Amino acid sequence: MERIIECVPNFSEGRDKDKIEQIVGCFRNVEGVKLLDYSSDEDHNRSVVTVIGEPEPLKDAMVAAIGKAVELIDMTKHQGQHPRMGCVDVVPFIPIRGVTVEDADALAKAVAKEASEKFGQPFFLYEKSATAPHRENLAKVRQGQFEGMAEKMKDQEKWKPDFGPNTIHPTGGVTAIGARMPLIAYNINLDTSNLEIAQKIADKIRHVKGGFRYCKAMGVMLEDRNIAQVSMNLTDYTKTSVYTVFETVRMEARRYGVNVLGSEVVGLIPLQAIVDCAEYYLGFENFDPKQVLETRL
Amino acid sequence: MERIIECVPNFSEGRDKDKIEQIVGCFRNVEGVKLLDYSSDEDHNRSVVTVIGEPEPLKDAMVAAIGKAVELIDMTKHQGQHPRMGCVDVVPFIPIRGVTVEDADALAKAVAKEASEKFGQPFFLYEKSATAPHRENLAKVRQGQFEGMAEKMKDQEKWKPDFGPNTIHPTGGVTAIGARMPLIAYNINLDTSNLEIAQKIADKIRHVKGGFRYCKAMGVMLEDRNIAQVSMNLTDYTKTSVYTVFETVRMEARRYGVNVLGSEVVGLIPLQAIVDCAEYYLGFENFDPKQVLETRL
Repeated sequence: MERIIECVPNFSEGRDKDKIEQIVGCFRNVEGVKLLDYSSDEDHNRSVVTVIGEPEPLKDAMVAAIGKAVELIDMTKHQGQHPRMGCVDVVPFIPIRGVTVEDADALAKAVAKEASEKFGQPFFLYEKSATAPHRENLAKVRQGQFEGMAEKMKDQEKWKPDFGPNTIHPTGGVTAIGARMPLIAYNINLDTSNLEIAQKIADKIRHVKGGFRYCKAMGVMLEDRNIAQVSMNLTDYTKTSVYTVFETVRMEARRYGVNVLGSEVVGLIPLQAIVDCAEYYLGFENFDPKQVLETRL
Repeated sequence: MERIIECVPNFSEGRDKDKIEQIVGCFRNVEGVKLLDYSSDEDHNRSVVTVIGEPEPLKDAMVAAIGKAVELIDMTKHQGQHPRMGCVDVVPFIPIRGVTVEDADALAKAVAKEASEKFGQPFFLYEKSATAPHRENLAKVRQGQFEGMAEKMKDQEKWKPDFGPNTIHPTGGVTAIGARMPLIAYNINLDTSNLEIAQKIADKIRHVKGGFRYCKAMGVMLEDRNIAQVSMNLTDYTKTSVYTVFETVRMEARRYGVNVLGSEVVGLIPLQAIVDCAEYYLGFENFDPKQVLETRL
């Protein structure tokens, strides 16, 4: 696969194995699509699927899975701890290789258009695909959840769906769909047991307090090591780089006479984010990620 | 493929397309083996194949290819500019993923054992597989070339093959085989047009002059940019790291009041070598290369 987009749809069914398998089955044995992982949580009553594929076959598989979810999941009977508003609750598309965030955005819109026409499910475009600033944040879009959504959508100026009918699907609710960048969970450990210092540094770099646009951050204690940590989510590493936040945290820590002990990546990180660090520190000229041997495998 | 070894065999036939295709054909349509690239040079009369695979199927394919070369190539009639001593001249095995250099070494020995028994071809173990220091360097092993090899091998104390008969195969000559690490071609650009400074820095870091064990280096001029460059081959990046030579060159340049402008990787670089840089500069704790998203594809 030359052009790869990742999709991580969340379905509001985490208990009925048969229904889950029917939905996940839409991603199996499809040329140009690969099911990487899926997991179901009974308390949340929710399943999260991770799938990658080339744009066109991924579109067809995702539309089919939405059709299955609309058919099998009745939100009027759904109970679970996780906030949710639709049988397919949220469908993020993430550019991985050989594609841009614009390609992921185009795919999100194509899926929403086709699925709304075929199954009568309404869609809100969110994140990078959002058509208004108040629709970017998933939590704000989902506020009110399935039960409150019909009422919320009466304010059509603010909450008219981008695709499909102007109110909820009676059993399917409404779905958020859109492009987003891969998220990097990144933590920096400080040589201090003073949590307040980590919190102050976090405030300097987090977007809501005047810091970097694509950085969420907070100070936390690592009790077992008795050290404070700046814990971050980087929501667009192409705009707010890993090395940028690292060097800024180090710089801010200096005013407290505190050293940086190290840092850690939690979960996955795109190759480009690692390459960006090598490019910065080693001054790489004209480096192409395709020079990384493993990308040839 | 979970465990991947790369093999770059050099065959002493670069003109007869039919023979080349018969040899290369041994790597086609083999489960667990992937032919990445091959190219033939008519002046050198030599073909270089790049193939990856899991150890066991790669062994079988490589043994088959050696059999074909012994059958089709007659070294008594071979002419070409590139030094050579056998129908299969050299067979390096390079650990890529999920394997160690010891695994590559074991594979080299298994191929040499089986191919020597089946086809009567003798093998010298070289590089990381060498059984004596004077056999590590390919150029020294190959000295005398095909025409001089029978005479050279009369000195059995120094040049008894590690596998196969004690002298050359009458038409197949003798083959060097062994494990080596991926080679990284890496250059550092200096903010000076004084070549002598690059040469002096190169002498500080190259192994033969007392520098790093796995670093070959020289000073060169980039005429079009009018700057001097320290040009390197790093022959084992796990022992002599990219960031180590970068920081050392920067440190040495300081004594001449010269800044480092940047650096460049020529050709391929293993993911781990890039990760090593991020680990050093960002102080990554417990980072696993499997956290790089692309390795999951």
